[in-house]
Amino acid sequence: MKAVVSIIMGSTSDYPVMEKAANFFNEMEIPFEVHALSAHRTPDEVEKFAKNADANGIKVIIAAAGMAAHLPGVIAAMTTLPVIGVPIKSSFDGLDALLSIVQMPPGIPVATVGVNGALNAAILGSQILASSDPVIKEKVIAYKGNLKSKIVKANEELKLKEFKFKTN
Amino acid sequence: MKAVVSIIMGSTSDYPVMEKAANFFNEMEIPFEVHALSAHRTPDEVEKFAKNADANGIKVIIAAAGMAAHLPGVIAAMTTLPVIGVPIKSSFDGLDALLSIVQMPPGIPVATVGVNGALNAAILGSQILASSDPVIKEKVIAYKGNLKSKIVKANEELKLKEFKFKTN
Amino acid sequence: MKAVVSIIMGSTSDYPVMEKAANFFNEMEIPFEVHALSAHRTPDEVEKFAKNADANGIKVIIAAAGMAAHLPGVIAAMTTLPVIGVPIKSSFDGLDALLSIVQMPPGIPVATVGVNGALNAAILGSQILASSDPVIKEKVIAYKGNLKSKIVKANEELKLKEFKFKTN
Amino acid sequence: MKAVVSIIMGSTSDYPVMEKAANFFNEMEIPFEVHALSAHRTPDEVEKFAKNADANGIKVIIAAAGMAAHLPGVIAAMTTLPVIGVPIKSSFDGLDALLSIVQMPPGIPVATVGVNGALNAAILGSQILASSDPVIKEKVIAYKGNLKSKIVKANEELKLKEFKFKTN
Amino acid sequence: MKAVVSIIMGSTSDYPVMEKAANFFNEMEIPFEVHALSAHRTPDEVEKFAKNADANGIKVIIAAAGMAAHLPGVIAAMTTLPVIGVPIKSSFDGLDALLSIVQMPPGIPVATVGVNGALNAAILGSQILASSDPVIKEKVIAYKGNLKSKIVKANEELKLKEFKFKTN
Amino acid sequence: MKAVVSIIMGSTSDYPVMEKAANFFNEMEIPFEVHALSAHRTPDEVEKFAKNADANGIKVIIAAAGMAAHLPGVIAAMTTLPVIGVPIKSSFDGLDALLSIVQMPPGIPVATVGVNGALNAAILGSQILASSDPVIKEKVIAYKGNLKSKIVKANEELKLKEFKFKTN
Amino acid sequence: MKAVVSIIMGSTSDYPVMEKAANFFNEMEIPFEVHALSAHRTPDEVEKFAKNADANGIKVIIAAAGMAAHLPGVIAAMTTLPVIGVPIKSSFDGLDALLSIVQMPPGIPVATVGVNGALNAAILGSQILASSDPVIKEKVIAYKGNLKSKIVKANEELKLKEFKFKTN
Amino acid sequence: MKAVVSIIMGSTSDYPVMEKAANFFNEMEIPFEVHALSAHRTPDEVEKFAKNADANGIKVIIAAAGMAAHLPGVIAAMTTLPVIGVPIKSSFDGLDALLSIVQMPPGIPVATVGVNGALNAAILGSQILASSDPVIKEKVIAYKGNLKSKIVKANEELKLKEFKFKTN
Repeated sequence: MKAVVSIIMGSTSDYPVMEKAANFFNEMEIPFEVHALSAHRTPDEVEKFAKNADANGIKVIIAAAGMAAHLPGVIAAMTTLPVIGVPIKSSFDGLDALLSIVQMPPGIPVATVGVNGALNAAILGSQILASSDPVIKEKVIAYKGNLKSKIVKANEELKLKEFKFKTN
Repeated sequence: MKAVVSIIMGSTSDYPVMEKAANFFNEMEIPFEVHALSAHRTPDEVEKFAKNADANGIKVIIAAAGMAAHLPGVIAAMTTLPVIGVPIKSSFDGLDALLSIVQMPPGIPVATVGVNGALNAAILGSQILASSDPVIKEKVIAYKGNLKSKIVKANEELKLKEFKFKTN
Repeated sequence: MKAVVSIIMGSTSDYPVMEKAANFFNEMEIPFEVHALSAHRTPDEVEKFAKNADANGIKVIIAAAGMAAHLPGVIAAMTTLPVIGVPIKSSFDGLDALLSIVQMPPGIPVATVGVNGALNAAILGSQILASSDPVIKEKVIAYKGNLKSKIVKANEELKLKEFKFKTN
Repeated sequence: MKAVVSIIMGSTSDYPVMEKAANFFNEMEIPFEVHALSAHRTPDEVEKFAKNADANGIKVIIAAAGMAAHLPGVIAAMTTLPVIGVPIKSSFDGLDALLSIVQMPPGIPVATVGVNGALNAAILGSQILASSDPVIKEKVIAYKGNLKSKIVKANEELKLKEFKFKTN
Repeated sequence: MKAVVSIIMGSTSDYPVMEKAANFFNEMEIPFEVHALSAHRTPDEVEKFAKNADANGIKVIIAAAGMAAHLPGVIAAMTTLPVIGVPIKSSFDGLDALLSIVQMPPGIPVATVGVNGALNAAILGSQILASSDPVIKEKVIAYKGNLKSKIVKANEELKLKEFKFKTN
Repeated sequence: MKAVVSIIMGSTSDYPVMEKAANFFNEMEIPFEVHALSAHRTPDEVEKFAKNADANGIKVIIAAAGMAAHLPGVIAAMTTLPVIGVPIKSSFDGLDALLSIVQMPPGIPVATVGVNGALNAAILGSQILASSDPVIKEKVIAYKGNLKSKIVKANEELKLKEFKFKTN
Repeated sequence: MKAVVSIIMGSTSDYPVMEKAANFFNEMEIPFEVHALSAHRTPDEVEKFAKNADANGIKVIIAAAGMAAHLPGVIAAMTTLPVIGVPIKSSFDGLDALLSIVQMPPGIPVATVGVNGALNAAILGSQILASSDPVIKEKVIAYKGNLKSKIVKANEELKLKEFKFKTN
Repeated sequence: MKAVVSIIMGSTSDYPVMEKAANFFNEMEIPFEVHALSAHRTPDEVEKFAKNADANGIKVIIAAAGMAAHLPGVIAAMTTLPVIGVPIKSSFDGLDALLSIVQMPPGIPVATVGVNGALNAAILGSQILASSDPVIKEKVIAYKGNLKSKIVKANEELKLKEFKFKTN
C-alpha cells in the first residue's frame, strides 16, 4: 500500500483540526501519509519532501498552516502536484492564514479551502484523485450523495418542534 | 391553518438562533413553517421549495445561513417572493455570512438583517405581511409600541443606582 | 396618481446612485416620490415624513445613506412600514454605511441591500408590493424572467471569442 | 445640586461598561444624571431629552450604544452641546458601533472615544467642563497627575521579577 | 486678538484637508492658530506646545495625523485641554489613523471625529468653546440651524427630476 | 477536439479578467470551453451544465464570480468534478467574493485562488489534469520551469541601475 | 554586568506576554533590563529613558503596547537605537496595536513583530546584537538550529497515530 | 567595496517602491546590492542567497514582497542575519502582504515596516548597522536630526496662510 495523498502540517497542535482529513481518507480507503514539516524551521526537509513527492507516488498534497502561513505556497513552488492549502485559525480569526495562502502570486497557485477546512480539503483531494480513478470516483459520488441525509434528519427534527402556529 | 411564512435554515445547529423567529410568529399568531434545506447539500429540495412557495400560499421567506451563505440568494433566484436573509455567526464574527448574503448582484435582492438577527427578520416579515393584512398590522403596531417598555424599565432600574453626585 | 413608494436620500450627491431605483419604478409604472431628508440635519422633517408615510398611502420606504448611515434606522423607528436601506459608498468602501444600516438592534429591522444597491432596493420594494398587488406581481415575474437575457447575450458574445483550442 | 453631565445608554445591559463613567464623576464630585433612552425604541423621549438638555443645565452629554449605534449621532443632531460617543462592544469587536458613531456626516460631530471607553468619555467630559470651571480643572489636573502612579507601581513590581541576567 | 484654538498637523500635505477647519473658525470669527508639528520628528516642539497651550490661552486643540497617528494622543498626554483628533486618510482608507487615535488607553482620551473630518472637528471645537462663551454659542446655534438649507435645496432639486410615475 | 476544461463566468464584464485563463489553456493546447452562466439569473442553465459536465468529458471547472459570489459553490454542489473558484474584484477589494467562495460549508469544497487570479486558476486546473495526463504534465513542468526567466530578467535589469555605492 | 537590551511595557498586565522575551534573554545569557513606562501617562520618563538608552549601553529596545500603541514609535522618535515593537492583543484581535506600531511615518521606523510576538522580538533583538558580537552569534545559530527539534518530535508523534490506510 | 546590505525584491515592478531604500543607502554611503529573487519562482536562488549572505559580508537583508508575501519569512528561515520585511501594496491595500510578513510563527522573526515602507526599512537597516559602526552611527544621528527641517519648513509655510482670524 503506497500513499497517494500527503497531509502536511507545521506542528502537532494543528492535528486536532487536520485529523478530520485523515479520518476522511481512512474512511474512503485512500492510502495517505501525515507529516509535520515547517517552511521556516525545517526548510530543507520541506524541500526534500516537495521535490520527491511526485516520484514517490503522491498525487495530491494537503498543507495546513496558521498565521503567516507559508507552507502551502512554499511546497507549491517546488512541485507540479496540486497543493491544497488549509488556513489554520490562530489569530485574526484565521484571516492572516487565509490571505497568506490564497493570495499567491501568478504562477504558483494553491487550492485554498476555508479556515480550518480540513474535511473540505480531503474531499477536494478525493475529487482530484477521482479524475483518473473510477473506484475513488464511485466513493466520492456516494459520499456526496449521503450529504443530504444530515439535512433530511435535521428537517425531521425540526418537524418535532411544537408551536401552536407552526404548520409542519 | 396554512403557513404564510417559511423559515429555512441549513441545519439544526442554526435552530437556537432561529428559534426567536419562530417564537415571534407564534406569539403574533401568524402561521409559519420551518424547514432545514441546504443550498449545497439538497439543491433539488431547495429548488422545489422555492419554485412552489408562492403557489403554496407563502408570502415571505426567511432564510438563514452561515459562512459562504448562499441559501438566501439561491432561494431568491427562484421566486419573486420577498426573501429575508439572516447571516449566522460561525467564523469571522459573521462577516463572511453577511457579505455572502447582502452583496447580491443586480436583479436578485435579499432583504438582509444583522448577524444572528432572527428576531428582526421575523419582525420585518410581519411588517411586509402587514402591508396587506390589517389584523397583522394591528399586532405589529402594538408590538412596536411595546418596545418602549424595556427601555422605560431600564430607566427605572438606573434610577435605583445610588451615587452621592447622581441627581436622578 | 398617488405614490406607494418613497425614495429618501440625504443629499443630491446620492442621486446618481439612487436614480436607478427611480428608473426602475418608472419603468414598472409604480408611482413613487423622491425626497432629500437628513436624519441629522432635518430630524423634524424626517419624523414628520416617517410618522405620516403610512397614512399618506406609502407602502414601502427606500432610504439611502452613507458613512454613519442613520437615516434608514431612524425612519424604521417611526413607522411600521417596511424600510429598505441602501448603504452608499463614500468611505471604507461603504463598510461603515453597511454596518450602520444592517446591524440594527432587536425590534427595529431594516431590510438592507448591498453597497450602492439602488436597483436591488427597488426590485425588493416591488416584490413586497407584489404580495398584495397582482398587477405588480405580473410585472415582477416578467422582469425577473428577463434577467436571463443579459446572460444569454453574454454567452453569445463569448462564443465569438476565437481561440485555437476553444471548443465552443 | 443640578446635573451638568448626562450619561445616556440604550439599555441596562450597557451599565456594567458605563458604570466607570458614573464612578468617575462621583469621585470627581461632578453632579451627573443617568438615563436609558433608545434612538430607535423611544425616539420621542430622546428628542425631548436632547432638545431640553441645554436649558436643563447640562453641559456635556455622554451617549453609549452598540451595533448600529445611532444614539450619539441622533442626540448630537438635536443639541449644540458637545456629545461624547462610546461604542459598546457586542459584535464585530465593536467595529460596527465605532464606525456608526465616529463616521458622522459633515455638520454633526460626535466626540468619539475607544470601544467600551466609558472612563475616557468621563475624563474627556471633565476636561470640557474644566474649560470654564477652575475647580474641576484643578481636579482634572490632579487626576491626570496621579495616572503616573499606576505605572510607577508597575515598574516597582517588575523590579521584583528575578532573572540571573536581569540587571534591574 | 489671541488664539483660543490650535490646529496642529504633521505636514503641509495635511493642509488641504485641514483647511476646512481653518475656514470654519475664520467664518465663525474665532481666533485660531495653525502649526505643523510632528510627534516623531519634532517631539520637543510638540512637548513645548502641549505643555504651554493652556497658559497661552488655548481652550481646544485640534490635532490631525495619518498612518500610525500618534500626534493627538501624545499631545493629550501633556495637557488637560480637550484634544480633538482628526484621522487623515493615507493608507487602509484611514483605518490605521482612526484606530491609532480613537483607541487611547484609559486616562488619556482623544475626542475623535471621522476620517478626514476637519470640518466636524472645528464644529466640535466650537461647541466646546460655546459652553462658556454665549457669543460663540449663538453662532453655533445659527450654524447648526443653517444646516437644513442644503438639504432643503437638495429636496427642491429633486422635485425638478421628471419621471412619468414620479408624484412629487 | 472535446473540451476538458470549462471556464464559467457570470457576465462578459468578467471576461477581461478571465481571458488570462483562456490564453493559458490555448497556449498549453488544452481544449476548453467558455460559458456565461449565472447562479441567480439562469439557475436552470447552471444546473444543466453542472449535472452534465462530467458526462460531457469535462475534467475541471473554473468558475468566476464577484460580490456575493455563489456560482462556484452552486456548481460544486451539483458535480463531483473539482471546481476552482476565482473571486472577481468589484467591491471591498474582492473580500466579499473571496469569503463567499472560500468559506464553503463542510462537504462541498471549492478550490479557491486569489482575487482576480484567473491565471493561477488555469495553472491549477492544468496541474489537476496533469495527474492523469503525461503530456499535460510535461507542459506544466516546462511552464513552471520557465517562471524563473522573468525573475532572472528582472535581476539583470536591476544590475543596470547605477548607484555609486551599489556593488552589483 | 550591564544591560544591552531594554524591555519596555506599558503596565504589568503586559508582563505575562513579555515574560517570554525576558526568559529568552536570560536563557541566552544576554543582560537585559525591564521597565514599565507609558507614552501617555509618564511621557517624561519615556523621554528620559529613550534619550539616555544609548549612552547607558543599551543596544536594542523592545517596546510592547496595546490599543492605540504609541510607545514604540514615541521611543523610536528619541533614539537612533533599533526599536522592536510588539503589538499586544486587547481589542480588535490586536489589529489596532499592530497598525499603530507598524504604520510609522517616513523617518522613524519601528521593527514590528506579530501580535503578542514577545519571543520573536527577543530573537530579533539577539540577531541584531549578533551582528557585532560573535558569542551571541554562536548562541543564535545554535538556537535557530534547535528549532527543528520541535518539528521533528511532532513528526515522530504523528507517526504513532494509527489508521488502517495511513502508510507512515 | 563590499555590500553590507542586500535589498531583495520579487520583480522589477517593486523597484519604484524600493528605489527609496537604494537612494538612502547611496546617500549614506553604505555599500549595498540589489537582487530580484522569488520565494516561489526561484526558490533555489533564494536559498543560495540566504545561506551565503552572512559569509558574503552582508549584515542586514531587506526583503520586499506583495500579496501572499513569503519572501522575507523564507529568507529569515535560512539565515541568522536580521531580515527587514517591506509589505508591497497590490491588493487589499497591502493588508495581505503585511499579515503574511509580520505574523511569523515563533522562532523566525521578520522586522516588519509599514506598507510600501522602503525608506523606513533602509533607515532601520542603518540603525542596525550603526550598533557596531560609529561612522554609520554619526550619519544616522545627522539624518534623524535633519528630519525636523521638513516640519519646520512646513510650519513656515503655514504661517503664510492668511485668514482674518488666524493669529500666527
